[in-house]
Amino acid sequence: MKNICMLIMTCLMSSWAFAQQALWGGSNIVSPQVNEDHTVTFRIYAPKASKVEVEGDFLAAKTVDTPFGKQDAPTKASLKEVKPGLWEYTTVPLASELYSYVFYVNDMRVLDPSNVFLSRDVATIQNIFIVGDGRGDNYMVQDVPHGNVAKVWYESPALGMDQRRMTVYTPAGYEDSKKKYPVLYLLHGAGGDENAWSELGRATQILDNLIAQGKVEPMIVVMPNGNGAQQAAPGEAPSSMEKPTFMNKKTMEGSIEKAFPDIIKYVEKHYRTYTDKKHRAICGLSMGGFHSLYISALYPDMFGYVGLFSAAIHKDNKGPNADVYQNLEQKLAKQFQHAPELYWIGIGKTDFLYNDNVSYRKLLDEKGYKYTYMETGEGHIWRNWRIYLSEFTPLLFK
Amino acid sequence: MKNICMLIMTCLMSSWAFAQQALWGGSNIVSPQVNEDHTVTFRIYAPKASKVEVEGDFLAAKTVDTPFGKQDAPTKASLKEVKPGLWEYTTVPLASELYSYVFYVNDMRVLDPSNVFLSRDVATIQNIFIVGDGRGDNYMVQDVPHGNVAKVWYESPALGMDQRRMTVYTPAGYEDSKKKYPVLYLLHGAGGDENAWSELGRATQILDNLIAQGKVEPMIVVMPNGNGAQQAAPGEAPSSMEKPTFMNKKTMEGSIEKAFPDIIKYVEKHYRTYTDKKHRAICGLSMGGFHSLYISALYPDMFGYVGLFSAAIHKDNKGPNADVYQNLEQKLAKQFQHAPELYWIGIGKTDFLYNDNVSYRKLLDEKGYKYTYMETGEGHIWRNWRIYLSEFTPLLFK
Repeated sequence: MKNICMLIMTCLMSSWAFAQQALWGGSNIVSPQVNEDHTVTFRIYAPKASKVEVEGDFLAAKTVDTPFGKQDAPTKASLKEVKPGLWEYTTVPLASELYSYVFYVNDMRVLDPSNVFLSRDVATIQNIFIVGDGRGDNYMVQDVPHGNVAKVWYESPALGMDQRRMTVYTPAGYEDSKKKYPVLYLLHGAGGDENAWSELGRATQILDNLIAQGKVEPMIVVMPNGNGAQQAAPGEAPSSMEKPTFMNKKTMEGSIEKAFPDIIKYVEKHYRTYTDKKHRAICGLSMGGFHSLYISALYPDMFGYVGLFSAAIHKDNKGPNADVYQNLEQKLAKQFQHAPELYWIGIGKTDFLYNDNVSYRKLLDEKGYKYTYMETGEGHIWRNWRIYLSEFTPLLFK
Repeated sequence: MKNICMLIMTCLMSSWAFAQQALWGGSNIVSPQVNEDHTVTFRIYAPKASKVEVEGDFLAAKTVDTPFGKQDAPTKASLKEVKPGLWEYTTVPLASELYSYVFYVNDMRVLDPSNVFLSRDVATIQNIFIVGDGRGDNYMVQDVPHGNVAKVWYESPALGMDQRRMTVYTPAGYEDSKKKYPVLYLLHGAGGDENAWSELGRATQILDNLIAQGKVEPMIVVMPNGNGAQQAAPGEAPSSMEKPTFMNKKTMEGSIEKAFPDIIKYVEKHYRTYTDKKHRAICGLSMGGFHSLYISALYPDMFGYVGLFSAAIHKDNKGPNADVYQNLEQKLAKQFQHAPELYWIGIGKTDFLYNDNVSYRKLLDEKGYKYTYMETGEGHIWRNWRIYLSEFTPLLFK
């Protein structure tokens, strides 16, 4: 009895579905397989398919015309049926990076059933994998001290909400120290939420690794929800298990900017932080870059470090919070009277916001406001934002 | 320029993939749709399919013969093509519950592309949905005060590991209180990890809701990783982005039981907890029930409340930690000398561990050790474990 029990335990414990899976034809497939030469092999069991393709950001993008001008669009590669029902494709050697992909089986979009690692962007889920031996190493969990990651609820009287959710990273050592720490406020883009930077952006891994390498000062990283009408990410707020939609209420009309002190108040009350400008940084991608620009201009004494990643820049002055966007030049004049230690701008050459950023830099140049500028290839994509986070954080609090 | 910018922002911000999705035929599909009469409609766009099915735990299970005796296996229902490429199926009215499902398109297992809510069990991902107006309400995020959930790393000298990951739930109010709290240690089963109870088990929602209803004392809930050879869940430990496999090293050979004080030490050092038997509870499902049994017997002065959910019971006495399992009757005699306030056993009628639990209760009866017993329908499934957690926690710390 006792021996049988152990056997049953091992084989069946994870519910019958587990055994069920072993019976299914695809259970032993490895996909994706990152090979030693940095090629990657994809495999899927699709027994009755006539066409199987993989679409991913490791394939050369194609340029397409859209109502908003030329844009990059992903392309597909065809898998071949190498055994009955088993389809396979191997890439050329890939640069070290985090990539995402999905399959198309007979033109139907399908996640890779052999890969449990996923990321969600609004209502779109993709599989992910990382090629190492380069930049991708910092996106992997490495054998270094890990920071803790908490999902915490804070009160935002300015938004009229008792509870809003945010992600807080405390660096390794925080729990057992009595030191105070500086804080980076790290903001997501439109369509994102408080999970975006830790999931799509690999912020936890990037911070763990760069801190362990001695390149980045240990810091608390606060990743709030930047959609003023939203309490929390899809599935984490009441009645939110419906299909996620693109949130555009109270996102770029001044609410979040005006309510930002609620976040700082919670953080500085509940964590051991410094509470001065020299120990606060703010940065964000796209809409989050826009928020970082206007929040740091609205509260010129609050942030010593500002980062605009592929930032949206311009704003119509409408609505009840229009004052947030009015008189930007005057606000910048005040902000740069006691200039931030670092004002950092990063953007990709093909970004649809590139020209807006050229104009904004021209304004800063004319006024003699100093900033650090980084220009990368490609456009409005997470690959660039992970790079910007990796370049920006080593410059903070030094 | 400014108006155009806003338009572009809204339409394209979430990368080109977002616009891409809108071009794809399936983008406006709602699935699953929980209807007012508690029927549920599934839909999928599968343009070239000849057969589409849904498999889920809301369909009557069938009994199949396995090497381990009769077991429940899930069944499938067929979708019908209601428009070119659009397949649909509506269930009968369902009881209020959390359900899981996947599609099969031409016999290939496919996740629902219209539902971003998923749960992972070892290497198997399924979609989930909740039918409300009953038990399922406590599995939903409701408009009640929410506890925080942290992923923290602790040192386990007994396992020879600098870092192991666990999930810690602190109830609403903890952050702004100076009170001490009791602690429940909540253990997963074989194949699980430190994410299992908060994801598959909905522990966060159950605790939030039952505490808000005044049925459960505010408590800290600690969900450690019960696989002694594992630092963290797949994807969260170094070199762990490979296909997850069923972990059976150092799971039921005494390591975890002996190392458990490392967990308690971390928790009681870093959280405001009571530190006596009357304010500590331990429970777990399957392998975690087995761990709860032997840990509470090994440290008879540690836990005032013990819960065995569909617990594995017997263990061979082999290996270097065999003493953990030896002389169980003597250990129980010592444990029940100052009997726990509550010794709770729950199991389903068709569970393959049912007879082992009958034998164990017989032993307890013979010795006159008091326990509370709950028997439910069905077998070794999460549906039962969520029920047991909902029944066990109201009995704690009162």
